[in-house]
Amino acid sequence: MEVAKVAIVGYGGVGACAARLLLNNSERISRFAGRRVELARVVDCDLKRPRNFTLPPGLLTDDLDGLLADPEITAVMELVDSAESARSITLKLLESGKDVITANQTLLAEHGTELFSLARQVGRSIAFEAAVAGGIPAVAAISECLTANRIESIHAILNGTSNFILSQMEENESEYEAALAEAQQCGYADANPALDVGGGDTAQKLAILAHLAFGASVDWREIPRVGINVVGLDDVRYARELGYTIKLLAVAELAPEGLELHVSPTLVRQGTPLAEVRGAYNAVRIVGDAVGRIFLHGLGAGQMPTASAVVSDLIDTLIGRHAISFRTLNLWPTEVAPTVPLRNPADVTGRYYLRLYADDRPNVMSEITGALGRHNISISSVIKHETEEGSDSVVPLVIMTHRTSEGSIAAAMKPISQFGCVHPGSLRMRVRD
Amino acid sequence: MEVAKVAIVGYGGVGACAARLLLNNSERISRFAGRRVELARVVDCDLKRPRNFTLPPGLLTDDLDGLLADPEITAVMELVDSAESARSITLKLLESGKDVITANQTLLAEHGTELFSLARQVGRSIAFEAAVAGGIPAVAAISECLTANRIESIHAILNGTSNFILSQMEENESEYEAALAEAQQCGYADANPALDVGGGDTAQKLAILAHLAFGASVDWREIPRVGINVVGLDDVRYARELGYTIKLLAVAELAPEGLELHVSPTLVRQGTPLAEVRGAYNAVRIVGDAVGRIFLHGLGAGQMPTASAVVSDLIDTLIGRHAISFRTLNLWPTEVAPTVPLRNPADVTGRYYLRLYADDRPNVMSEITGALGRHNISISSVIKHETEEGSDSVVPLVIMTHRTSEGSIAAAMKPISQFGCVHPGSLRMRVRD
Repeated sequence: MEVAKVAIVGYGGVGACAARLLLNNSERISRFAGRRVELARVVDCDLKRPRNFTLPPGLLTDDLDGLLADPEITAVMELVDSAESARSITLKLLESGKDVITANQTLLAEHGTELFSLARQVGRSIAFEAAVAGGIPAVAAISECLTANRIESIHAILNGTSNFILSQMEENESEYEAALAEAQQCGYADANPALDVGGGDTAQKLAILAHLAFGASVDWREIPRVGINVVGLDDVRYARELGYTIKLLAVAELAPEGLELHVSPTLVRQGTPLAEVRGAYNAVRIVGDAVGRIFLHGLGAGQMPTASAVVSDLIDTLIGRHAISFRTLNLWPTEVAPTVPLRNPADVTGRYYLRLYADDRPNVMSEITGALGRHNISISSVIKHETEEGSDSVVPLVIMTHRTSEGSIAAAMKPISQFGCVHPGSLRMRVRD
Repeated sequence: MEVAKVAIVGYGGVGACAARLLLNNSERISRFAGRRVELARVVDCDLKRPRNFTLPPGLLTDDLDGLLADPEITAVMELVDSAESARSITLKLLESGKDVITANQTLLAEHGTELFSLARQVGRSIAFEAAVAGGIPAVAAISECLTANRIESIHAILNGTSNFILSQMEENESEYEAALAEAQQCGYADANPALDVGGGDTAQKLAILAHLAFGASVDWREIPRVGINVVGLDDVRYARELGYTIKLLAVAELAPEGLELHVSPTLVRQGTPLAEVRGAYNAVRIVGDAVGRIFLHGLGAGQMPTASAVVSDLIDTLIGRHAISFRTLNLWPTEVAPTVPLRNPADVTGRYYLRLYADDRPNVMSEITGALGRHNISISSVIKHETEEGSDSVVPLVIMTHRTSEGSIAAAMKPISQFGCVHPGSLRMRVRD
């Protein structure tokens, strides 16, 4: 039986799981790959750090150049944390004639065009199923299985950490900070969770999906985004009272005016599939003109589910399937025809949840609702729980609007937040029915 | 740009939708296929029947031999209804050097080994994503995206007609016959729905999935199966009262003793993803050792979702990806190592729902529960609604058991159904918590 030598660069949690799969499931993996898959090198600059998997002796090395110079190794799993290191390593791997498999969505969102362009130039491929929605085959679904369809929309939960925190807040009535600390304890959130809870990670993944599904070449920083770090336990409770659950949604939706893209905590109607996505799970809901609605659900975070996607991509690469996808399906084209303009975010319409802290005194309600009315925003419902008369306190006021535009609601909220009766910390969230 | 000539054999509903996609989305499909995809011939023995799509003149023909003799046509979508005709046409297509794409699960379940063996012999491929779960990429998920995993279980809803009927019974309190008539009116159920409502269609699809996921070569007729035609509106109501929804489940589960396979109407706990699958939707829940639980949901019936899978398979075939899957992933091997023995169905354990019609008189309950006790079956709950004393009527009695084996429950039900106090028409269903 032919032997295929492969390597891992970046021996952290996902790297250890990929090594474990390759060594423990080797019979099965070799059967699918049609050749014996041999893990020949594992490269990391830190040889001392304790790992949760013990490699056979002699496999772990800090000699990247040795790997680059080994012509027998044709496919490498690049699982380095830092996007900058990953970029320079990936460039070197491609230049030395190796196919690359990566799980790093920041790498692709930041440097995708450069890397894919080099890969095409040198006749190699980059596989990246693991970079979006972990173990869920979302990349394959969009770029391989639904090719007969014009994709109309994608609604997705793509950040396991954020979804875990929101689930904790909802199920255990935890405050945001306590839920974040628990996510960190469980190993879901980094010590610096800004990219997760600020929506950046989700925006990077959405940029990748938008590229695949709509051919939209968009810088992830330009996608309007709000993270879950603005959501309080109060909001989770009001949402529940109104029949909704709060989820960090990534949205890509094709309209006649262009492609709508945004990431934001959103009130999702209880009982719908997206609302039922709990804990560290991810989900991707895709609508295609022929297939209708497809819903994919699975573990989006976690080392083993990510390694599952990495190793399946490795097999795909070794048997030559991925080279064909990469070349013919023109994944991540360097030059994208500007057929899909981005829609002006201010024009995107929808319903909104507004939560204000306001003085509990006469005229407050009329001032706020008057300001909404001046922007032609009509009110669907109001929650103001009963308070003691003359308590002179600050009370939460929740308003659900009818359909309006992002531009109108932003314009209305500007003066409202400056009213003397309105205290800092107002929040608006999108509503999905 | 290179041109790829393709053809359709069998111009029914799915054929018309596939033609519509190829002609209306041709720019998009050609881009993905890396060549201009030209629908060169549509073959059907009936040229007169009205269709919901009008082909350009000259395309429709009843000349199958002309197609077989045309060397320029390299890939053919075989969409003939009858499995027998489909078999002989597929053999001819393969022999004349054409790759085949099919949506016919009966064809594969009945003649898979013969067809796949011939395809290998002549160096052609057969693609069949559309044959299981329509538009859901279940075949790709199992055979291409989860190759790093040892699959542990599959639980699936694979028959849109049965699920539609069960949903109608539940949501509209329809009797079975009325719901079936509605399914026929909506075009979901055939005039002869026996294969759908008897569980045969689901068993055929389960046999295909078991082949892909577990390498289990099993005749679909040998899979223990019960259809939904035994379920009454009463059962739907009792299930709801107990916190369950009835679904026709296909189950493949790996145990140390072997592979458990069966198809049966099953009480599924309300609120779980499988319970929420409504109408003509299908769903596939897969557990892999690395990826954990993956849940795929989408339209399983319907001409357009099926055509979506057929045309995506066509693209996969034209660009050469499917040939690699077919060859290297060894889809549907002719010789399967008997590594996965089938588990004796009598040994499979689980909870059961029993519904009996019994005389409303003393000693009945004790006779029935005594018979269960003699087979060591312990009772979890009983529903016997209050009746007027001395009414001397026949009343429904519902018993939920604790975990027992299929063998024990079958052995206990045999004497119970012969008790004088028990009337014909008893039902037992599996329970999934």
